[in-house]
Amino acid sequence: MANFGGHAIPGSFFLFYGFWLIVKHTLQHFWRTTQPKGRQIMPPFFKKMEYLEGGLQIFASFVGIMVEQFVVDGPHAHLYDKENNSWVKLMNWQHSTMYLFFGISGIASVASATSKLVPVGVDRLAISLALFVEGFLFYYHVDSRPLLDRHIHSLLLVAVFGGSASTILEVFIRDNIILELLRGGLFILQGTWFYQIGFVLFPLSGPEWDLTLHANVMFVTMCFCWHLAVAVLLVTCTASMVWFTVKRFSVRGRDIEIGMRNSSSKTSSQKALLEESDEE
Amino acid sequence: MANFGGHAIPGSFFLFYGFWLIVKHTLQHFWRTTQPKGRQIMPPFFKKMEYLEGGLQIFASFVGIMVEQFVVDGPHAHLYDKENNSWVKLMNWQHSTMYLFFGISGIASVASATSKLVPVGVDRLAISLALFVEGFLFYYHVDSRPLLDRHIHSLLLVAVFGGSASTILEVFIRDNIILELLRGGLFILQGTWFYQIGFVLFPLSGPEWDLTLHANVMFVTMCFCWHLAVAVLLVTCTASMVWFTVKRFSVRGRDIEIGMRNSSSKTSSQKALLEESDEE
Amino acid sequence: MANFGGHAIPGSFFLFYGFWLIVKHTLQHFWRTTQPKGRQIMPPFFKKMEYLEGGLQIFASFVGIMVEQFVVDGPHAHLYDKENNSWVKLMNWQHSTMYLFFGISGIASVASATSKLVPVGVDRLAISLALFVEGFLFYYHVDSRPLLDRHIHSLLLVAVFGGSASTILEVFIRDNIILELLRGGLFILQGTWFYQIGFVLFPLSGPEWDLTLHANVMFVTMCFCWHLAVAVLLVTCTASMVWFTVKRFSVRGRDIEIGMRNSSSKTSSQKALLEESDEE
Amino acid sequence: MANFGGHAIPGSFFLFYGFWLIVKHTLQHFWRTTQPKGRQIMPPFFKKMEYLEGGLQIFASFVGIMVEQFVVDGPHAHLYDKENNSWVKLMNWQHSTMYLFFGISGIASVASATSKLVPVGVDRLAISLALFVEGFLFYYHVDSRPLLDRHIHSLLLVAVFGGSASTILEVFIRDNIILELLRGGLFILQGTWFYQIGFVLFPLSGPEWDLTLHANVMFVTMCFCWHLAVAVLLVTCTASMVWFTVKRFSVRGRDIEIGMRNSSSKTSSQKALLEESDEE
Repeated sequence: MANFGGHAIPGSFFLFYGFWLIVKHTLQHFWRTTQPKGRQIMPPFFKKMEYLEGGLQIFASFVGIMVEQFVVDGPHAHLYDKENNSWVKLMNWQHSTMYLFFGISGIASVASATSKLVPVGVDRLAISLALFVEGFLFYYHVDSRPLLDRHIHSLLLVAVFGGSASTILEVFIRDNIILELLRGGLFILQGTWFYQIGFVLFPLSGPEWDLTLHANVMFVTMCFCWHLAVAVLLVTCTASMVWFTVKRFSVRGRDIEIGMRNSSSKTSSQKALLEESDEE
Repeated sequence: MANFGGHAIPGSFFLFYGFWLIVKHTLQHFWRTTQPKGRQIMPPFFKKMEYLEGGLQIFASFVGIMVEQFVVDGPHAHLYDKENNSWVKLMNWQHSTMYLFFGISGIASVASATSKLVPVGVDRLAISLALFVEGFLFYYHVDSRPLLDRHIHSLLLVAVFGGSASTILEVFIRDNIILELLRGGLFILQGTWFYQIGFVLFPLSGPEWDLTLHANVMFVTMCFCWHLAVAVLLVTCTASMVWFTVKRFSVRGRDIEIGMRNSSSKTSSQKALLEESDEE
Repeated sequence: MANFGGHAIPGSFFLFYGFWLIVKHTLQHFWRTTQPKGRQIMPPFFKKMEYLEGGLQIFASFVGIMVEQFVVDGPHAHLYDKENNSWVKLMNWQHSTMYLFFGISGIASVASATSKLVPVGVDRLAISLALFVEGFLFYYHVDSRPLLDRHIHSLLLVAVFGGSASTILEVFIRDNIILELLRGGLFILQGTWFYQIGFVLFPLSGPEWDLTLHANVMFVTMCFCWHLAVAVLLVTCTASMVWFTVKRFSVRGRDIEIGMRNSSSKTSSQKALLEESDEE
Repeated sequence: MANFGGHAIPGSFFLFYGFWLIVKHTLQHFWRTTQPKGRQIMPPFFKKMEYLEGGLQIFASFVGIMVEQFVVDGPHAHLYDKENNSWVKLMNWQHSTMYLFFGISGIASVASATSKLVPVGVDRLAISLALFVEGFLFYYHVDSRPLLDRHIHSLLLVAVFGGSASTILEVFIRDNIILELLRGGLFILQGTWFYQIGFVLFPLSGPEWDLTLHANVMFVTMCFCWHLAVAVLLVTCTASMVWFTVKRFSVRGRDIEIGMRNSSSKTSSQKALLEESDEE
């Protein structure tokens, strides 16, 4: 997938997934903080979200593997070419492997939501593993390429391994909104950085980048920090918007509920008064 | 042990040990989750398992050391050859050292099961130490070899050091089924990867691998991820099978128990009725 | 800012910030340890400190960015020079990026103090992120420079990344005075080391340092440890001074309070006696 | 101190300190496990041990610094030789710096034992810092030396940084006997390895070691693991011996105590009986 589209597609997916995570975990956090301590069972709505997320992950991974295998210049499920004594399209196979682990993570997500027998935290372990495998393959992916190409991919690894590390922490520290938003933010960062890689290596317009110039490396490093700042901004805005939207709806719902209670209690107190006056 | 067998033997051991760990820890987890909170003392059955495991570890390590020392081309317990001013068969000595630490881990395991005086977690520290020493020796083992040979061994280190790190966590986070299965899974991964090393470096049939080709390195990296996926699959299947087998037996046992209680209570209530009627 | 002043200004800021942190956290620790367990709400005085700190951070970052951009030889907000096909003053842009993240940290600090909706620990995550970005940019900053220049900057990274790591721990381990003082101490260390870098690279008097001499590298490494010892000393002295000053005032205040209570209770008991005698 | 003695002296100190730690922490662990939950205040005996340890540490560090500075070929407190434009005896200065931090650790130890105002864990942080500084200086100490010399020192760093990492954990995980014994064991390992470095670099008898031979590097790596095994053995034996010795004494003491109580209760019950009979 050595073109702009090949970086834009995964970038869009990660971006979308990151936003989804922010929305999901903000809703969960809202639910957790507003519930009284007695009620600790998650409402079925969250389970449905998990099923949807897991299902989409499995579906997208399956499509991804199929596309990588059966595009025109793909390996068509052939691994080794005995005639030429060479491996067939290892790049596509590597991408398929990455998708495979995101698929496994989807299965773990669905399984965790379905059954209480699956130990708590398996879903996070699977995401962490998927990110680890992605970073692991990328790490050996980029040897023997020009300086800037190698550097821009190695910066991706900061987001990928950072995400893997923060997610494995979630296996032990559950329901920590900071870690959850961090995970979402690192997926967003990964998404935008995939776009950036596409823009740098396959510019849509303008001159080609000099892949060996040190100043370009310096700019790209700084640019990664800007993406990080943008990711922080996006996470903050999204989470705040979701929080205040939910709050307004929830307050309205409660107002109605309280209003109904009031009116009913009013009636009952009126009744009581009437009864009292009757007794008198 | 520079042949296929020399990699298949430790590989089989690690594979077997990994499966054993999955079975043991799934049983323990089943026991933990199904017991009421009052009964916290492990049944003696688990202690016997620990004795068996530790004993086998000690025995296997002892045999391993003896074999490494006294095979035909072994060092026969000679360390330094004063005539030639050279070390005698350092490879065998290194393997003996690795076995030694697995033996120590076996002793720690038995000691932990025997006496309450041994601090909780010493057994895990000893396993972690054994894995650390294995990785540590391998790390300096593979310098100055061809590219692919070095790479395929360094991938082994991912499983070894990963296992060491996850096991040291268990010293502090006890009875966490995810960490326990992770440990088992990493031993299985180590086992299958030992076989893979054997197949690559000493192919049983077909042409030799080109140990300097970059494409081979890329394939082997990806192949490691496939082994990881297979390990995840094996852990999941084994743990599920053990869980459901135990559950069926346990339900049956309880049914019988309940049935007996019912019949006995029935009889006693009938007796009570009779007595009551007698009194009347 | 390749001159002595360019190192002395950030150095002074970090030094000042470090001392501020020590004072603030010692006061908080004093408050925490002397309060009875019932009263757990921080007095408004600490909130005001947070506002002040955050506000100053935002202001200083803004000024820093403006200065870096609009000094005489600055980039004046131009990033790319199309005529010469080159980046404009990347160094100033990098410093602006660093300031940006300290500004974000200031915003997070103010937001944390203002609203209870901001998850606990976001302020520390933002500081950790700011330090990470600082270290990250410095890391790629110093390639291709003479040995001593590279080494003296890489020692700075020990303080920067050490601070980032210890601060991220504070997201999970709250109100731990040791981690808080460690953070303050590492900022002080960073401050004094900035001065040291200035003295070595741009000596105010005396001969230039030979930037390639190995003995100089050895001395500078050792000198970093001396700065560390000085930082330990400064933290200890400052924290002790603040503690005992507060204690004296607090004891005096309590004495007065107790004195007043005593006199009032005396009067009331006298009254009670009088009343009793009246009754008699 | 480039001779055998220069490695044997610190080696002996670390060895002695390691054993001391094992004894101290085993006694503390015995005390913790045998006390009923009510009594949580450490007996004054342990405080005296802390004073002794801290005092000896301060004294030894002071002597160490003095010796390094004022031996015949020492720097005599001169840092820079202006005539030759060169640093004076940087090696001795580096060793002095290391001693300085062990001295600071001694001060922290005494301060922790003296006053409750010193936050819990400061003593461990100071030990961790002292080990970090030792490792940090050694790390840059050994550049540009022959292969084996560099390797044998870098193995020392495994023990030093391992000790630093495990000790910093103790700031957060208090009274964990495993971490405490691990710290002791790593000091013992450091001690024996210092001796080993002395034997290899300055052999007392026999031929010189070839510092560039790869087989020697391989042997030394393995030898480090043997030292580790010996350290494990020494820790286990020492801790067991201390434990059982204390237990015997404590049981005897309790027997006497119980015996006295029995006799006294006997008398009192006899008295009661007498009284009862009197009443009859």
